[in-house]
Amino acid sequence: MKLQEIADRVGGEIVGDPDIEITGVAGIREARPGDITFFANPRYEAHLRSTDASAIILSKNGVEAGSGRTLLISPNPYLAFLRVIELFAPRDYEKPRGIHATAVIGKNVTIGQSVTIGPHAVVEDDAAIGEGTRILPNSYVGFRARIGRDCLIYPNVTIREDSEIGDRVILHSGAVIGSDGFGFTKNGPRHMKIPQIGRVVIGDDVEIGANTTIDRATVGTTRIGKGTKIDNLVQIAHNAVVGENTIIVAQVGISGSTEIGDNVTLAGQAGIVGHIRIGDNVKVGAQAGVTKSVPPNTAVSGYPAREHSLSRKIYASITRLPDLIRRLAFLERRVNVLEGKPAGDPPIENGEEGDEE
Amino acid sequence: MKLQEIADRVGGEIVGDPDIEITGVAGIREARPGDITFFANPRYEAHLRSTDASAIILSKNGVEAGSGRTLLISPNPYLAFLRVIELFAPRDYEKPRGIHATAVIGKNVTIGQSVTIGPHAVVEDDAAIGEGTRILPNSYVGFRARIGRDCLIYPNVTIREDSEIGDRVILHSGAVIGSDGFGFTKNGPRHMKIPQIGRVVIGDDVEIGANTTIDRATVGTTRIGKGTKIDNLVQIAHNAVVGENTIIVAQVGISGSTEIGDNVTLAGQAGIVGHIRIGDNVKVGAQAGVTKSVPPNTAVSGYPAREHSLSRKIYASITRLPDLIRRLAFLERRVNVLEGKPAGDPPIENGEEGDEE
Amino acid sequence: MKLQEIADRVGGEIVGDPDIEITGVAGIREARPGDITFFANPRYEAHLRSTDASAIILSKNGVEAGSGRTLLISPNPYLAFLRVIELFAPRDYEKPRGIHATAVIGKNVTIGQSVTIGPHAVVEDDAAIGEGTRILPNSYVGFRARIGRDCLIYPNVTIREDSEIGDRVILHSGAVIGSDGFGFTKNGPRHMKIPQIGRVVIGDDVEIGANTTIDRATVGTTRIGKGTKIDNLVQIAHNAVVGENTIIVAQVGISGSTEIGDNVTLAGQAGIVGHIRIGDNVKVGAQAGVTKSVPPNTAVSGYPAREHSLSRKIYASITRLPDLIRRLAFLERRVNVLEGKPAGDPPIENGEEGDEE
Repeated sequence: MKLQEIADRVGGEIVGDPDIEITGVAGIREARPGDITFFANPRYEAHLRSTDASAIILSKNGVEAGSGRTLLISPNPYLAFLRVIELFAPRDYEKPRGIHATAVIGKNVTIGQSVTIGPHAVVEDDAAIGEGTRILPNSYVGFRARIGRDCLIYPNVTIREDSEIGDRVILHSGAVIGSDGFGFTKNGPRHMKIPQIGRVVIGDDVEIGANTTIDRATVGTTRIGKGTKIDNLVQIAHNAVVGENTIIVAQVGISGSTEIGDNVTLAGQAGIVGHIRIGDNVKVGAQAGVTKSVPPNTAVSGYPAREHSLSRKIYASITRLPDLIRRLAFLERRVNVLEGKPAGDPPIENGEEGDEE
Repeated sequence: MKLQEIADRVGGEIVGDPDIEITGVAGIREARPGDITFFANPRYEAHLRSTDASAIILSKNGVEAGSGRTLLISPNPYLAFLRVIELFAPRDYEKPRGIHATAVIGKNVTIGQSVTIGPHAVVEDDAAIGEGTRILPNSYVGFRARIGRDCLIYPNVTIREDSEIGDRVILHSGAVIGSDGFGFTKNGPRHMKIPQIGRVVIGDDVEIGANTTIDRATVGTTRIGKGTKIDNLVQIAHNAVVGENTIIVAQVGISGSTEIGDNVTLAGQAGIVGHIRIGDNVKVGAQAGVTKSVPPNTAVSGYPAREHSLSRKIYASITRLPDLIRRLAFLERRVNVLEGKPAGDPPIENGEEGDEE
Repeated sequence: MKLQEIADRVGGEIVGDPDIEITGVAGIREARPGDITFFANPRYEAHLRSTDASAIILSKNGVEAGSGRTLLISPNPYLAFLRVIELFAPRDYEKPRGIHATAVIGKNVTIGQSVTIGPHAVVEDDAAIGEGTRILPNSYVGFRARIGRDCLIYPNVTIREDSEIGDRVILHSGAVIGSDGFGFTKNGPRHMKIPQIGRVVIGDDVEIGANTTIDRATVGTTRIGKGTKIDNLVQIAHNAVVGENTIIVAQVGISGSTEIGDNVTLAGQAGIVGHIRIGDNVKVGAQAGVTKSVPPNTAVSGYPAREHSLSRKIYASITRLPDLIRRLAFLERRVNVLEGKPAGDPPIENGEEGDEE
């Protein structure tokens, strides 16, 4: 495919020869002659000059650094690259394959057109699978679960009974949707299980990462809003409600009944306590521990999470603590002298005698 | 079913018409006319007035707030609600279903009465499955594993060889019981694997969450005491010993050979180092990093974990650090002046020049 | 087997009767007469005296404590114990078992000699499985995936398309190799998925824990170097590159495009941000939050991670903060008096009025 044809299809302005032949697509470090690649991260500027790629997609900002190379300038290089990938990347095996002979399909299951159900997948009674959806091998769809159109359920996924999944949803391997919420009540020393009779509802265009777990509600619904993207190994507890177009990075934990707004970003390993509300457009820093509700349009970080600029100031101050302790002790001796008393004990040199091991 | 019949079966005192017909059970926000619901959390008091439910289970404390509604007053509303759920929630599909034709059962496997083994489940040689236990689709039971009575093994669970599981145990989807402990010994630059020939023993009435991993012992036993409840995505390392009726919330990590007592609560994302002992009735806060043994009947939190009231005081103090630095610098200048020296450099305004990025 | 025969095979020097008969191997607490056991951890010195084992493997350091017992003194007791385990532990079921009748094997799959493919495993078209490799039940091998020799793939593992796995690799249950990287680009309020067309390459002798997830690269390769050992529930994001003989403990998260050197240790629950480099031989403490590159041969800990000795000093100082605040306020009043002003407000007694809840 000529570079000009690519530009016609994905948009953008060519710098250099529009007639060169592009035969593939690759990362900037892996590209070989004939490939088109992509540059966005200034850290990799050296690769911009050294790559073997025949053409490079970039934004106007990169044009100077890329001078001498054949360029495709795009207002959104990621989006352009994404479209180029779709032109080149062969995904034949993603075609519909029908229902494999070894799949086990229960009674009264509704199956749309062009559905794929892979080897050893199990679909229980009264489930419904929408048109074009692919259930890959060894996955499980529980009783009365409803899955929308054009979904992609990777191998070894578990969708428990009564879960409802929208259209174009992607569930990665090992994800568990609708596991029991973690709810018990004390009866003497013993914890008695509170049956978890609610369910999980997942909106359209949601993506859920590998080995992520989303618990069903005790009663009612654990809800993931449309367009929200969830990374791997995330825990979402019973009755949590997550808004739309929110980003939840790997290993985040959201406790029970907490509400997360729209367009929120929860960075990796953050933890959110139960029964609070995180407003729209909030950004929560990596490893933050959020202990109370956060108003919309704010950024928080640290443990316990505080407004991000305060948190940065605090964590920077902490570095100076050992010095601070020394200075305070020194000052105390000087004030003793000013007051006409003995200077007192020498200042403690550092914090090593603290209770830390 | 009339409300009076419900009260007769689950206990409690009716306020209002005992003859109203109850047709279902639902959460306070989702309930429709005919449903009985449940109120416990004062945060939801507004729902107590607005719910469409026909009757509400609550404790004496809620009676005033619920005036004008039909109430079922219970000393333990959760327990009462739990029993009501069991009356109403239809779980037909949980009946015994026998051994599915596609299940693969090894040689010399002992299978009790009324056992369910679902499609594509695999049970290896010499395993034993107790009466009434259900192994759901795509789960794996290893060689010589022993599973007690009335257990519920959800889809896609892995139980490795030689594991021993008590009665009435629930294992949620993706749980892995008996994976190898993480043990290596250096041989030059290389890490040589130490074979993990121990096993996992899980007591009666234990519940283990989705995608939780419990490693087998190097030698000996990794043990989970009876009645202990473990949430999703928890890691329990080789040779750990967890006591009875302990609660372990999502994403907690327990390192090798650590002992956790009875009635302990480990809140979400807490981490416990290896080779220590957490005493009975200890409470460990969310995200805490526990670096040394904790005596019984104490609460710890923070990183490194300290006695909870001290930890709270410390984390509150941290907020004031930038202000503290300013005040100290100001005081140094004043003492300089009192000592007849130049005041010196102006105080540093805040911590921003610290090493934090 | 006589103790002398064991010493001949695994090395070491006997103290006591070389002719005693050894019939098994067990942990120091579980050992019974006839067993050989192993002592390394000084915490268990009491067990050294009380164990029922007939012989004990230990290093020279333990000889005194073990006086009166039959000992096998080894320069590396772990390694010796490892070899003894291999002599005694029966693992018959690990013999090659061929391809089970229920396994589903795609077109054009290359399968080496002595391969085991268990019940309900699925191997897609164009995959290759090396000699002696065992794919256990319910695992999935994707299109064009290549697995080397003598690998052990436990039940319920997912290996996505195009993944490349070296020789003698162990993948524990629930591990997901080659799930999509978490990459999106904004298109208005919506997050558009960036297709993840790269792959995962895993070197020889790597071990990957239960429910660990390793994402495929956006383009190019996510790489795990040979000899690296990864524990359970670890997240490794797209385009990360991990060196050789590195140890990654449970629940660690490594963000996208980060490079980890050789012989690194990442302790449990540590998080590493994206696009940085962790040098060779670095040690990262448990729960650390690493926010910038770390030079080789250093140890870091804490949040944000700092050089370990500084971090220890800081965390020790923090304990003294409430006291520090009190002392500073007291000093301010004294300086007020020295300056001839009113002493002012009494010192704030502690940090409880802070913003912590």
